Amino acid sequence: MLVEGRHFLPGAEPRALGHKALAVNLSDLAAMGAAPRWATLALGLPRADEAWLAAFSEGFFALAERHGMDLIGGDTTRAPQVTICVTALGEVPSGVAMYRAAARPDDDIWVSGELGSAALALSHPALSHPDMAAAAAKLHQPEPRVELGERLRGLARAAIDVSDGLAGDLQHILERSHVSAVIHYEDIPRLAAFGELNQRELEKDCVLSGGDDYELVFTVARERRKEVEALSRELGVPLTRIGAVQSGQPRLVVLDAADKPMSFRGGFDHFAQR
Amino acid sequence: MLVEGRHFLPGAEPRALGHKALAVNLSDLAAMGAAPRWATLALGLPRADEAWLAAFSEGFFALAERHGMDLIGGDTTRAPQVTICVTALGEVPSGVAMYRAAARPDDDIWVSGELGSAALALSHPALSHPDMAAAAAKLHQPEPRVELGERLRGLARAAIDVSDGLAGDLQHILERSHVSAVIHYEDIPRLAAFGELNQRELEKDCVLSGGDDYELVFTVARERRKEVEALSRELGVPLTRIGAVQSGQPRLVVLDAADKPMSFRGGFDHFAQR
Repeated sequence: MLVEGRHFLPGAEPRALGHKALAVNLSDLAAMGAAPRWATLALGLPRADEAWLAAFSEGFFALAERHGMDLIGGDTTRAPQVTICVTALGEVPSGVAMYRAAARPDDDIWVSGELGSAALALSHPALSHPDMAAAAAKLHQPEPRVELGERLRGLARAAIDVSDGLAGDLQHILERSHVSAVIHYEDIPRLAAFGELNQRELEKDCVLSGGDDYELVFTVARERRKEVEALSRELGVPLTRIGAVQSGQPRLVVLDAADKPMSFRGGFDHFAQR
Repeated sequence: MLVEGRHFLPGAEPRALGHKALAVNLSDLAAMGAAPRWATLALGLPRADEAWLAAFSEGFFALAERHGMDLIGGDTTRAPQVTICVTALGEVPSGVAMYRAAARPDDDIWVSGELGSAALALSHPALSHPDMAAAAAKLHQPEPRVELGERLRGLARAAIDVSDGLAGDLQHILERSHVSAVIHYEDIPRLAAFGELNQRELEKDCVLSGGDDYELVFTVARERRKEVEALSRELGVPLTRIGAVQSGQPRLVVLDAADKPMSFRGGFDHFAQR
């Protein structure tokens, strides 16, 4: 459920919004290895604005068609602010879906793409750097890792998409799998723009705790590293090994370049008092 | 999508709300003859109120369990007002689902239960009459006609549930089926409380145009009348024949006791200026 004023600003570009409303749901399907099939769309709107609806639908259906999805239900009603509720349904063969609870000690931990880009675009929209176009696209028009998710079937054990920040989302895997994990901060892939910015705290916050990246973080048995590397080359999607699962309490340790544990902000709490 | 201040009042009893949020979706499944299977629930809430959530969940899950439904997904987020988005999924054997587009000339038009009850409870909550408890239950705790919907498979042609008022909802069938219809106002079943109230305009408004009844209106080939009557007796659900489908433009004619056409208010327009 995306709510105006909370998940997007009043006046947000409706085409990008239509895309993103579906994309964030496709990302959840990708994290389970599911092929997208059907979607429902419920819209709460302050008024019937045909131009807005046309642009929103364009963004929504362009992405839906690209993934062969049919819109099979929904609702339209009046609401004080734009409210968008998408339900996406997909299919995955029996026995190969990835679950948060499936990580095992000694699994490698991998991430796709770069992390922190969307948070960088949100915090420094005016930063001048060649990377910033990619960062803005990540924030406003994320491309869910659907193909990667499907190809990880039978290879990855646990997976989740990074919607609320790496640390918090990875923590969900640890809790459900009853394992701990160590990751190496310097190994986490990020845009070169962060180097130029030279704000270490902001960078850490974006990379470890920034939401809206919609990359996949997943665990794979250590002996299957070469298969992940081959998949990365085949799909042209960067897949980076950032740490390993260990037995123990569900705790995430992030090590700096000197292998010292770092402090970091946890996952996003929608009901925190701010 | 149910929005506080629009579909229910601030402070609405959360247990009844949890029931109704699922019930209105089950009613849509029933209108197609589908057996309920799965649901998703997205909640937008101004704050994390555990007592509210517990009561809401109690109402939601009591109904879900009664129909053997599993909650298979959803979301929780903060929103300026309580916003509830339920998606219900069901199954129906191939070829026997009821569709709005399936009505044919000479079909009888039937309705289940009584119409106008919820609208009466909304407009006259303090009316003293033995019927008013049933009317209030209809408004706050509607029982979707799930079993009836399943049993109408292969018997009814077109069906819809009465959520926005008989006239408007039946009009959807006429438009999609490219047929017209004549119904007899006096034949439409209603609570005896209307007689006591003796407000003919209000009564007409409730019976023909009142929303939130969640009864089924459906069409059946004329030669199968006895089967509908037998089903009514078997299920203990009043099923009343109120008119017939005719060929022609998609227009609904409502005749009074003297067979004179009556004027009436059409369906609910969520974006009408009021």
